Parts: sequence; structure tokens; C-alpha cells
Amino acid sequence: MPAVQDFYPDDVAHCYGCGRLNDRGLHIRSTWDGDNTVAILTPQPYHTAIPGYVYGGLIASLIDCHGTGSAALAAYRAAGREPGTAPALRFVTASLKVDYLRPTPIGIPLVARGRIVELKPRKVVTEITVFANNEVCARGEVVAVLMPEKMLAGPKSEIRDEIRDI
Amino acid sequence: MPAVQDFYPDDVAHCYGCGRLNDRGLHIRSTWDGDNTVAILTPQPYHTAIPGYVYGGLIASLIDCHGTGSAALAAYRAAGREPGTAPALRFVTASLKVDYLRPTPIGIPLVARGRIVELKPRKVVTEITVFANNEVCARGEVVAVLMPEKMLAGPKSEIRDEIRDI
Repeated sequence: MPAVQDFYPDDVAHCYGCGRLNDRGLHIRSTWDGDNTVAILTPQPYHTAIPGYVYGGLIASLIDCHGTGSAALAAYRAAGREPGTAPALRFVTASLKVDYLRPTPIGIPLVARGRIVELKPRKVVTEITVFANNEVCARGEVVAVLMPEKMLAGPKSEIRDEIRDI
Repeated sequence: MPAVQDFYPDDVAHCYGCGRLNDRGLHIRSTWDGDNTVAILTPQPYHTAIPGYVYGGLIASLIDCHGTGSAALAAYRAAGREPGTAPALRFVTASLKVDYLRPTPIGIPLVARGRIVELKPRKVVTEITVFANNEVCARGEVVAVLMPEKMLAGPKSEIRDEIRDI
């Protein structure tokens, strides 16, 4: 099933978490599952916290990228368009919150399920719940904002100001 | 300067973010800087978000591990002991919050500065601010809890219950 990240424009498809063009990345992929969203990631053996458990930063990464991916999915659906149609909708993270509810066992796929909490044209809030073996291990909230086109030009101060103003 | 992670016991020193025994890890190292703490991490070229900027999940990882490291530093100091003395104090993350204030330029060291916000024997809250080129790029809060010794035994349900109760 195609993921929204499959349709990110090439020049914004290098994200370490979810960019299909990042050879070293995690390749997180977000799709619809009814009215919610889903992404599945199997941690590598070296993604350990303490032996037997998944590193919290990896769980945060899964929540982060599935949050921005879910935001893009929701924005396309709200616009009555499919990912891949123009103009492309690419969201970035304004804030991220993760509650680690249980130690997350390593060696099995993690399933991140997303729920759209708030949907505005330039801001989407999602709640992401991470399951291992069908047990909830972590829950997060991602505030994602539509990427200003100028961000592609480089880290200039006026772009930062625009991000802060969102 | 020795970091607190240099003294984590071998069996809890494999964290992908800060474990000295994880060959594939980030090797985040936390030290005192007066009454605050500091950790420095230079992202790799593949740790990109969109080209030119650092991946938010890596920034979350830096805040996460410097938060638990700062918690351990503070707990040792409160106990009047140095890291490396017994018993070892190892904290894990209960919750993590990150506000991405500006796009973070890639290719330069990120400096994470920690401030101890709350200090209890089994719970330490830290505020971590991440700078690039002396500009604040992200700010986070980490709630860290002292690791139950039983966690080393494996992901059993009673251990999860203990974590949830903290």
C-alpha cells in the first residue's frame, strides 16, 4: 500500500526518519487505516535502551515521523486530493511529546497508530500510540506545521522567524 | 572530562543514544558545567530532516539521553557521591517533550545544556536547551525515573507495572 512518504517531492525526501531517499534512514511509512493512520517499524538490534528494550529516542522518532506523515495524509484528504497531486503538502514538527508507558520489548515490529486531533490548513495535531505485541507502550502528541516553501532555500534567519510565527 | 555515562554499569551501557558499549550508537556524554549540565553532539550528514537541517528525532534523542544523564549527575551530587561509586544510579525516561523553535542547521556541533528543575530520589526533571551556533534551536523537558533493578531481568509484566506506578 503506498505511503504518503512515497509521494514527498524528491528535494524533501531525505529525512532520516521517513525519507525514501535517505540510504541510512529508518524509512518510516504512514498510511490510512480507516479514519486513523498506521506505520510499522521493526527496530534493529542496536536500537536498544537497556538490553531487551527499545531505545526511547527511536520511539520518539517513530512518533515524530508518523505524526508529520499523518498530518500530510489528513491535509490531502481535507483538500479532497490524493498524495502525489500538486501542490505537495509536506509537514514538519513544531513540538513533540512522548509518554513512555511501559518498557518496549525489542525484536518485534512496533505499530504506531495515529489519530487526527486538530486539523487546520497549516497546522495538524495528531495523537500517536505505539504498540508492541498489541500492548500500548508509548503515547505521543505531534504538532505539525506545513513546511514553508522558503525552508528549501537554506537556514536563513527570515525563515526561522516564519517558523516561530506559526 | 569524564561523563556520567562513562560510569554506567556494563549491563546498562548499551543505549543507542548514550551507551559507551553500543558500537552503532550516538555516544552522547553528559558532564557538569557549574550548576548546569552539558552534552555536545555533532550530527552525521545522514541525520537530515530536509536538506540543510538536523532531523528532529535526533534532537529528541539528544534531549532524551542528556536528560537521563543529567538526572544521574544530579542524583549523585545530591547523595554526596561521585559517579562510579556504588550503588550505581541509572535513570530512564518516563516522558519527553520537545519544542522545535527553529530549524537546526546541520554540519556543526549541537550543544545541549541541562538545568535541574525537580530533584527527588527516584524522579528528576530536567530542562534541556539545544543550541547551534549559540542560537537556541530546541528546548525540551525530560522526566527521568530511577531504573528499577528488576528491569534487567527482561520485559515481564510486573516490571511494566512498576514503571507505570512511578
